[in-house]
Amino acid sequence: MRHPGVLAAAADELRAAIAPERVSLDPDRLLPYGHDESELGDYPPELLVHALSAEDVRRVFAVARKHRLPVVPSSARSGKTGGILAVQGGIGLSLERMDRILEISVADSTARVQPGVVLARFQAEVEKVGLFYPPDPNSLDTCMLGGNIAENSGGPRCVKYGVTRDYVLGLEVVLPTGEILRTGRRTIKGVAGYDVTGLLVGSEGTLAVVTEITVKLLPRPRHVSTALVVFRDLEDAARAVARVLAAGVLPRCLELIDDVCVQACARAAPFHFPADAGAALLVETDGNDEEQVFAEIVRVAELVQGDATGEVIVAQNEAQRRDIWETRKFLSVNLKALHPYKLSEDIVVPRSRIPEMVRRAREIGKAHRLLVATYGHAGDGNLHCNVLYDRPDEKPRVDAAVGDILRAAVDMGGTITGEHGVGLAKRDFLEYEQGKELVALQRRLKAAFDPEGILNPGKIFPERS
Amino acid sequence: MRHPGVLAAAADELRAAIAPERVSLDPDRLLPYGHDESELGDYPPELLVHALSAEDVRRVFAVARKHRLPVVPSSARSGKTGGILAVQGGIGLSLERMDRILEISVADSTARVQPGVVLARFQAEVEKVGLFYPPDPNSLDTCMLGGNIAENSGGPRCVKYGVTRDYVLGLEVVLPTGEILRTGRRTIKGVAGYDVTGLLVGSEGTLAVVTEITVKLLPRPRHVSTALVVFRDLEDAARAVARVLAAGVLPRCLELIDDVCVQACARAAPFHFPADAGAALLVETDGNDEEQVFAEIVRVAELVQGDATGEVIVAQNEAQRRDIWETRKFLSVNLKALHPYKLSEDIVVPRSRIPEMVRRAREIGKAHRLLVATYGHAGDGNLHCNVLYDRPDEKPRVDAAVGDILRAAVDMGGTITGEHGVGLAKRDFLEYEQGKELVALQRRLKAAFDPEGILNPGKIFPERS
Repeated sequence: MRHPGVLAAAADELRAAIAPERVSLDPDRLLPYGHDESELGDYPPELLVHALSAEDVRRVFAVARKHRLPVVPSSARSGKTGGILAVQGGIGLSLERMDRILEISVADSTARVQPGVVLARFQAEVEKVGLFYPPDPNSLDTCMLGGNIAENSGGPRCVKYGVTRDYVLGLEVVLPTGEILRTGRRTIKGVAGYDVTGLLVGSEGTLAVVTEITVKLLPRPRHVSTALVVFRDLEDAARAVARVLAAGVLPRCLELIDDVCVQACARAAPFHFPADAGAALLVETDGNDEEQVFAEIVRVAELVQGDATGEVIVAQNEAQRRDIWETRKFLSVNLKALHPYKLSEDIVVPRSRIPEMVRRAREIGKAHRLLVATYGHAGDGNLHCNVLYDRPDEKPRVDAAVGDILRAAVDMGGTITGEHGVGLAKRDFLEYEQGKELVALQRRLKAAFDPEGILNPGKIFPERS
Repeated sequence: MRHPGVLAAAADELRAAIAPERVSLDPDRLLPYGHDESELGDYPPELLVHALSAEDVRRVFAVARKHRLPVVPSSARSGKTGGILAVQGGIGLSLERMDRILEISVADSTARVQPGVVLARFQAEVEKVGLFYPPDPNSLDTCMLGGNIAENSGGPRCVKYGVTRDYVLGLEVVLPTGEILRTGRRTIKGVAGYDVTGLLVGSEGTLAVVTEITVKLLPRPRHVSTALVVFRDLEDAARAVARVLAAGVLPRCLELIDDVCVQACARAAPFHFPADAGAALLVETDGNDEEQVFAEIVRVAELVQGDATGEVIVAQNEAQRRDIWETRKFLSVNLKALHPYKLSEDIVVPRSRIPEMVRRAREIGKAHRLLVATYGHAGDGNLHCNVLYDRPDEKPRVDAAVGDILRAAVDMGGTITGEHGVGLAKRDFLEYEQGKELVALQRRLKAAFDPEGILNPGKIFPERS
């Protein structure tokens, strides 16, 4: 048990070192910093600090080390696996006010940003000058780049363009031991020393706190074409995906939705899905030449025509494109109309095993008397299996089904998380995928950054028994 | 000093544990394992083992730990920075006979290979089935994938397609402590735990020995167009690069050569370079639609026409393409015709500072009474500054010039190595770029993998004073 005077003393020291108005012990102010978009409940920090600089973060760590308090960093709190939950209490360290875009260099195709910049705002700014930052998690209107770094965020476009890690060149970070480091580089290329930057990306806020981010940017593709294709069953859809990729076409999105999702979509979408549709694909191509991009989506349409049920809908204008995306974007909401609760899983299997995995998830659901609806990024095998339920008291059954789904993915040569991270939600499954020895190695890496174990404890790794 | 009986005892144990014919103490057989493509001299190991499996590697480490012998892994020995030199003696561990392509999966766009597979052979095999593995270091006809992983190899195509790390999904490795681990994943996407795989790529054989590699593959672009453009000076060439990228065109190669290189090329190339040419660019576009790819290179030609001197040569057929590439490929050889010795540096600067860096390298050369010729990958700012000289006894002056060039790159916001690694050659410059604290962190990471410091000692990090 912690001595009761510790928090008050830490708060006093932080008020003096940082700024009184950016340090709080007020439970009402702490509460929102205790949950994210997972279904794991509330774990508020005991003390909240809003940092405005790397120096602020360094001061927080100094006070935390002195009083042996955990530090739990957060930005938008839109994660799905509980990464920002203060499971052992301590100091909540919010980076959300470090929200400046410091530089966008057209000449070097790079940008420097602070961790509290909202992704959609950043993308809009770089697109204004003809550049492009591809990672596009569904939460892009609210999530922040600091969180994207922590989770190595993906999204539909990643099948063509790669994930967050592929764009991060360098970071400014503060180690729990107090050093302020600049890792990586400001250039597009470079191999000096170990890839500490890449190790920090996806480390879920457990190794260091990111205070500045340098990313590379691409030329913005000027044209996009979008198509929606409906299939009789998953096998047909999977065959269509294989056919498109085998033809050498790499669409920028290849989104799959299963029959339950099609039905959920049909409630809201402006498209008429056939009553017997068993799956649908949303495909997008992009590039700089409008005719060429349209020709490529038509080529996709031709390739999948034989597998499709009914016609292939190619968006003829921006309004139709938007309609098609609304279908996908509000899927999550529409599924909740079928059953008010859902737990969204995030597995990956080798692309060739997608139909098998979707079927297996459905069977697992049935065995636990639950409906599972799957959608995901078919091009890279990343599936979101949504376990739907009606009442909170069904949660233990839901958790059991999720466990079975995660193990099934690993058994098929896959992984327990494609883009949401391990966090608190899946820490008990990491060894099943990676084995005890690889997990032990990762604990040693954690200790190299955080020897006292004060940064975001209880995440990624199973509790030691 | 090591006890004289140690090597004989270690050799006996290794012969018994592995196979007599794959263990050698014969100096003549050891000699070729003591040098690479750097100019650092000969450092042969004292004992040589050819591994055929992860189990062999585990046994080598067991014997090495018992006798406190360094282990120095190698594959093709084509590196440029001395990564495989046995600077502290010990066991040379060759992976070159682990040369099997284990699997190429068209359905999953992945492949599994052993570290001794020659890159060009692997590329040819995947291209046969319509797939594509982009990294293309100049040594591709001899270098091996194990070495590519160690060095995180790049090449001209990396401006569009990224470097080796971007393609490595998972590894089987043996830790110096004896564990055989499978890191990463076999799927395209995945974020479970820290990116141990990415950390191993580019670690220059200092963290673990790679025994199997899983890479992702892309659809093979079916058509390529190539152009050669000559400029009055570097500024004009740099302006052309900026113009191409600003127009949203991302060529698959954007190779720059300076005036000294142009003159060297002119000796052998089938093209007539104008006598006053100050720089040239080699540009390539690729894709699946022949007309579109050609249209794109024509667009590049139009964009750079204003900056160019004379005509833009667009290859009209495969023979012309080959001619253009020969010009670039034999540049290194042709430079040696100007001066018999050269030391090739490998820096990166922000793209906007390329002309400044090329000029600076030339001035540094002059100050040391040496000629510097620069070529490189203009799209990502990676420059190979070649210090040319006539006699071995000029080497101290050459080393001094190289030191000045490396520091100048860092001072311009760049890095000391873009694709050749640090190895032995640049370890004394790492702290200048990264600072003492980041280097100290990397030493802690090294210790997490190799607590006894037996794997490839003396590389990357400066000797402790």
